[in-house]
Amino acid sequence: MLNRVRSAVAHLVSSGGAPPPRPKSPDLSNAPSAQPAVPPEAPRSPPARAGSGSSAPAKTVEARASFSRPTFLQLSPGGLRRADDHAGRAVQSPPDTGRRLPWSTGYAEVINAGKSRHNEDQACCEVVYLEGRRSVSGVPREPSRGQGLCFYYWGLFDGHAGGGAAEMASRLLHRHIREQLKDLSCWSSQKEVTHESLVVGAIENAFQFMDEQMARERRGHQVEGGCCALVVVYLLGKVYVANAGDSRAIIVRNGEIIPMSREFTPETERQRLQLLGFLKPELLGGEFTHLEFPRRIQPKELGQRMLYRDQNMTGWAYKKIELEDLRFPLVCGEGKKARVMATIGVTRGLGDHNLKVCSSTLPIKPFLSCFPEVRVYDLTQYEHCPDDVLVLGTDGLWDVTSDCEVAATVDRVLSAYEPNDPSRYTALAQALVLGARGTPRDRGWRLPNNKLGSGDDISVFVIPLGGPGSYS
Amino acid sequence: MLNRVRSAVAHLVSSGGAPPPRPKSPDLSNAPSAQPAVPPEAPRSPPARAGSGSSAPAKTVEARASFSRPTFLQLSPGGLRRADDHAGRAVQSPPDTGRRLPWSTGYAEVINAGKSRHNEDQACCEVVYLEGRRSVSGVPREPSRGQGLCFYYWGLFDGHAGGGAAEMASRLLHRHIREQLKDLSCWSSQKEVTHESLVVGAIENAFQFMDEQMARERRGHQVEGGCCALVVVYLLGKVYVANAGDSRAIIVRNGEIIPMSREFTPETERQRLQLLGFLKPELLGGEFTHLEFPRRIQPKELGQRMLYRDQNMTGWAYKKIELEDLRFPLVCGEGKKARVMATIGVTRGLGDHNLKVCSSTLPIKPFLSCFPEVRVYDLTQYEHCPDDVLVLGTDGLWDVTSDCEVAATVDRVLSAYEPNDPSRYTALAQALVLGARGTPRDRGWRLPNNKLGSGDDISVFVIPLGGPGSYS
Repeated sequence: MLNRVRSAVAHLVSSGGAPPPRPKSPDLSNAPSAQPAVPPEAPRSPPARAGSGSSAPAKTVEARASFSRPTFLQLSPGGLRRADDHAGRAVQSPPDTGRRLPWSTGYAEVINAGKSRHNEDQACCEVVYLEGRRSVSGVPREPSRGQGLCFYYWGLFDGHAGGGAAEMASRLLHRHIREQLKDLSCWSSQKEVTHESLVVGAIENAFQFMDEQMARERRGHQVEGGCCALVVVYLLGKVYVANAGDSRAIIVRNGEIIPMSREFTPETERQRLQLLGFLKPELLGGEFTHLEFPRRIQPKELGQRMLYRDQNMTGWAYKKIELEDLRFPLVCGEGKKARVMATIGVTRGLGDHNLKVCSSTLPIKPFLSCFPEVRVYDLTQYEHCPDDVLVLGTDGLWDVTSDCEVAATVDRVLSAYEPNDPSRYTALAQALVLGARGTPRDRGWRLPNNKLGSGDDISVFVIPLGGPGSYS
Repeated sequence: MLNRVRSAVAHLVSSGGAPPPRPKSPDLSNAPSAQPAVPPEAPRSPPARAGSGSSAPAKTVEARASFSRPTFLQLSPGGLRRADDHAGRAVQSPPDTGRRLPWSTGYAEVINAGKSRHNEDQACCEVVYLEGRRSVSGVPREPSRGQGLCFYYWGLFDGHAGGGAAEMASRLLHRHIREQLKDLSCWSSQKEVTHESLVVGAIENAFQFMDEQMARERRGHQVEGGCCALVVVYLLGKVYVANAGDSRAIIVRNGEIIPMSREFTPETERQRLQLLGFLKPELLGGEFTHLEFPRRIQPKELGQRMLYRDQNMTGWAYKKIELEDLRFPLVCGEGKKARVMATIGVTRGLGDHNLKVCSSTLPIKPFLSCFPEVRVYDLTQYEHCPDDVLVLGTDGLWDVTSDCEVAATVDRVLSAYEPNDPSRYTALAQALVLGARGTPRDRGWRLPNNKLGSGDDISVFVIPLGGPGSYS
């Protein structure tokens, strides 16, 4: 994700080329990241620290040692080193021996090809009790009968500009959800307020409280950077998929693809961003215009007619160029190169409270929303078979893999295993990660079709909806 | 539509029961409306003038005489009187003799059951030349070969709080679209800017310019009230459906229903309205809160916990009631009773520049958007048969008729006519209007199932997509 956060754009402000000063290293984080390297196959613009406030700690032995991966991977110190090796990019999964993840969930991950020092993705899988009990750390247990109401929880967190926010969210977001869901007990039926809408509201508010906690703790330099968050909650027959960022969730059911999230980027959220810039022009600091143009306006074009779009428009129309239109556009670029304020390529997530426009004190956070979109899938409305799965992936997967290709891999891998073999979902997660990573060839990681594989961190959960889990 | 605009809510501000003062009658409008009467069967709250600024002219003979209906109805003075009769509610259509509307479009309308003095719906159907020529007034002609580029245009305008805005929009909106589309000639292909997106942008901007013209002219008391606008433009093989308000368009194609618009109401636009109130609290005037609660909060509940939703939430969560939460909610009510600022039940449209919260100087317009949502349908992608139609209707139709019921009527009526009989689309429009109006019985207009028919103005266009029109 780091390459979605860019620092200065040369034609916006001249920075003189000197790197921004770095503040004190966070002393809480388990996963501080070091100075990013340019990936050998970088298909996009080179990544760099965005703003002084979100800079990473210096490369110290301490920072290196505090690098962390999800507990359920049960990595030894040696395993941790191998997981952190950009050259080998070994795929990591929970060990095949011992207790499995709930529902026999499959998981696999791989580190990036060098764009950031450590893997800035984080993951979490928990069984969370609403009534007092907490799951022990390590591999979460399936609940026994009589242990009270619980929810199942899976989370993927794709960090940028440092690993702190993703690490913190992976430790704490499910606890915020638990706190919010406690309120369900005082619910009495009221018009138009359904049980489902209360769970959705609880998840929405938990994201907000998590973000507020990050804002509080960054003041003591506790949290660096930001992260996309893709979270699944299973409670009382329903699957809630909450997404803030550019990770993605799809259900593959009997070969059919059911999208369970959408991505939040400067392109998909253009009108929301423009509306905020229009209503609160002080947030643009006199440096940006909320209008969008098909290309950058040149000073000599003043007074000429040019196509534009504002916050209300989906189409393009003409206007006469005025002085304000020469400012840098709030939203610019296309596809993976689209940026808000020339800096960040994702518009929802947690953290980023210190993120500033480079060589400027202008904060970007007001344009970034921590609120997820929550989609609900009723598990009881369909008889699922063991090949029906919910696939979660960070953008490292989806940048090079289409929904259809994922569905094809689901079919290919699962059909090679017995339906009741619980290892099939981990094998599937590994196949998806490997398929997106590719193999090293021609000075880069390449897919079988010779296109570039993903140089990003890649993390994948495969959650069986009709598998051998004990939930049904 | 008038009953969607309410004046004071008793528990918000005490008005003493006296009617607001009425300003000078508009001197331009062809369709000023008089004081509304309570419909005998009114299923909703009683309508009343909203705010002093948007009041109607006094009931004068002059106002009555200036009542107007669409030119293409070719109504004689006697016919105009019959069209204006609330007791008979005769269905009006273009005469079956003489020239038909372009594409053999069907049209029918009926006046309300007494809720406003005149029919506040207006309609327009035109062939509009982009290169100099204009269609003559009266029934628009199908273009001959070699007459240059033109677009086909249909518009339904559902007025509220007076007929002035709807009348003005029906006369002028297509001219604004024409002006905007002239810019297409200076279009040179640029990245991501398609011809289609330019037409969409032209329509969006035309709505804005129309609204700005109403704002300018209302200062000279030229325009009263506001109106929903549902507009169809056919240009170069594509049908553009632009909707701002609660009218609706559907395509019925081979029995299948394709929605071509969505309604903009306080319920569907809750989050947009709340966001504006949150970002610009001065627009709430200290009278309203942008938060939504399942019910009105009582002062004695201060400090207690209550469910709420804000601009970011789709679900419900709990908060502790504070003093500000005792204010009246910006968005309240459900279904057809939902209101913005306790006043208006539709959130997009043209006009309403004088609309105020009753007994207050607080303007409502900033919350109302003039921007339409534009949907595009490519007519060349499917071979249409004569039974495939685009149906446009004001809310008078849709309040009592489902999409499926309309599709059933399409099938029933069209199958009773020869496919090449051009009068079949008018017959269908009449059947739809009659089916929504019902017949007078038990002190009201009732449908065959004894439910109440619509007491609103009802207007319907039926546009054949594969009919005997000369467009193909």
